[in-house]
Parts: sequence; structure tokens; C-alpha cells
Amino acid sequence: MDFPPLATSFSISLPDWIRDELADVPDAIPDLGERMALVNRLADRNWREGNGGPFAALVAERDTGRIVSVGVNVVLGTGISSGHAEVTALGLAQARLGAWDLGGAGLPPHELVVNGRPCVQCYGATLWSGVRSLVVGCDGAEIERLTGFDEGPMVSDWDAQFEARGIAVTSGFLRDECAAVLGAYGEAAASGGVTVYNARSGD
Amino acid sequence: MDFPPLATSFSISLPDWIRDELADVPDAIPDLGERMALVNRLADRNWREGNGGPFAALVAERDTGRIVSVGVNVVLGTGISSGHAEVTALGLAQARLGAWDLGGAGLPPHELVVNGRPCVQCYGATLWSGVRSLVVGCDGAEIERLTGFDEGPMVSDWDAQFEARGIAVTSGFLRDECAAVLGAYGEAAASGGVTVYNARSGD
Repeated sequence: MDFPPLATSFSISLPDWIRDELADVPDAIPDLGERMALVNRLADRNWREGNGGPFAALVAERDTGRIVSVGVNVVLGTGISSGHAEVTALGLAQARLGAWDLGGAGLPPHELVVNGRPCVQCYGATLWSGVRSLVVGCDGAEIERLTGFDEGPMVSDWDAQFEARGIAVTSGFLRDECAAVLGAYGEAAASGGVTVYNARSGD
Repeated sequence: MDFPPLATSFSISLPDWIRDELADVPDAIPDLGERMALVNRLADRNWREGNGGPFAALVAERDTGRIVSVGVNVVLGTGISSGHAEVTALGLAQARLGAWDLGGAGLPPHELVVNGRPCVQCYGATLWSGVRSLVVGCDGAEIERLTGFDEGPMVSDWDAQFEARGIAVTSGFLRDECAAVLGAYGEAAASGGVTVYNARSGD
């Protein structure tokens, strides 16, 4: 077999508009509500730009609010189905720090903030990333109801399983603001204006 | 905020030795057992090269055995915690085909072959990839027992959930051969020779 046609590498990249969106945002956002407000702003712009679903995430130093990375769902923009907001934000944080374990020795505690509960893929991605805390807006059932996405089969005690591994979970944080973003996307999807990219579309 | 220090992109890349390992392998491997044997060979070399865990995967056209991509666990090699074998193989297949949905209209059915049951992250990654079938060697409990990795909380009917979404599952395929590779890694890990990269090592 030869390379190419076999591929040796793929990239997960942020869209260009992220630079403009963050130009006036400070390096640290000490208030958690303001961190979630940024996530919601990125999530809302993301689907309107046609880049992917209405999801965004950020990794911050938990105790200072210093922003280490931001991520949005880039499935449509990059053509990679694993490119959800959490995978993007966690990978960009690891790339910046040069460390696959964000909970490694010598690093401050890192927190993941996301507008909706991670899907089953991103549940695992969060578990393996090394973050010490997770802040979630809408829950999984709300995401499915508002957007039409399949979130996948999750264990019922998903939050306790996080806690058992040393990852503190805050759920329902600014839920109404998060739901407003997801709902706007859902209305656009219902009218045929956007692609709900559930797989196996060739059925 | 500025880019850099914020990162805008990260890459998941195969190690260089993959080219040598595949040089004499044909473009199509019609026999499923030979496809799994290739996966096991890559998984075994992967951890010995220090690239990551003893896991490999490939995406093939299900009916012809044409190899679309191969992946290995690149967590240590790339510094990205989501870079498991399945995420790597699925992303490389999507990069090659220019399609985030491997089950999209006009594409042949695609199959993922992996030496161990996907962890919870890769369970979701497989669900969202568009593959139509999954072939697994060792089960999750065997992986945890043989290697020391945490596979994460999975629903008990994980295979039925795949089937309900149109993804056929074959489990326990060449289980003994797969277990031999995982067991060799586990012995090396027990003697301190390799890193079992469970996160939050700074505890």
C-alpha cells in the first residue's frame, strides 16, 4: 500500500472568524457566567457560519479563568466526524501546552465549559483529557429535543462516573441561555436551512 | 485574545514506521482474518515503538476488503489524548474520501476493524463516523484486565445500540490473537517499561 492514496495525517482547525470573535476578549475571564456566555456566542455563530452544529467549548484554568483554548463543532468545516467542540477544545489545549494530560504534574487544574452535555464520544474524550472539572449547560435530552441530534447511549450515572475519577461536574449552568442557542438552531434545521449531520445519510 | 498563544489547529498523524510496515501489504485484503492480523501487527509494533497503547484499527470497504485507512493509538506520539486508534483510522478515512459521513450517498459500505472493543470515546466516534459494520477482537473487560487501561463507563447493551443504528457488530473475532498482543503490553507495563497513559497523572 502507498501513501497516498492512504492518508497519514488529518487536522482539526478552527474557522477563521474565531480570530475576529475573540479579538477583544481578555486573556482571562474570571467569572464563570461570562465564560459560558462566550461559549454560547461561539456556538451561535458557528452554525450560522455553516461550520457545524451549535456547540462550543473552552478550556480554562479553573482557578483564574485564563483561557487555554476554545473549540467549536467543526464536523462540516473540516470533514472529520470526531471534530466536536469538546474534542476540538481539548486537543487545542493539549497542542498549546504540549501535554496529552491536562491533569499532569505541574499543571494548574483545567476546566472544560460546554453549552450542552457531551455526547457519548465527548464523554470519553473529556474523561481521558485530564481536566479536573466540567461545566455543562443543557442536558442530553434537551439537546436531542431542541436540535434533533443523536447524543448516543450514555450510562445513567455519567456524572457520578466523572466524580469517581476526580472530575467535578456542574450541570444546568445558565441552562436557559444555552437552550436559546440550541433552539434557534433547531428551528433553522426544521425549516431545512441547515444540515443535522447524523451519520449514514446514504440510507 | 491572540493566536498564538491560542492554538488554531492540531493534527493527528501516523508514525513514520507505518509506511515501512505497509510497503508490501496489498491494497485490498479480502480475508477478514488477514485484516485483523494486520491490525494486530500494527498494534504490537505501536507500543514497542513508544507511540502509544497497543491498539490499532483499519477502515476497509466491507465487501471488497480494500483498505481505506489504518490507524494506531498516537496519544504519546502526538500529545493529543483523543488520538486513539479508532479516531485516527476514521479521521484518516474521512480525510482521504473528503467526507465526514463514511455512510453517505454513493459510498460503498465501510467497516471498522479493531483489536479491542472501542472505549467509550471511540464508541461514540464509531457511531458518528458512518461505518456500517464493526469487527472487534477482545472485549472491554479483557482490555482492562490485560493492559490496565480504563475503558470508561459503557451501556450494557452497547452492541444492540450499534445494531439499532444500522451498524453490524462482530465481537470476539480472533480473540486469542488479540489478547496475546494486549497481554505482552500488559507485562511490559507491569514491569515499568511503558506508560499506561490514564489521565490526571498529577494526582
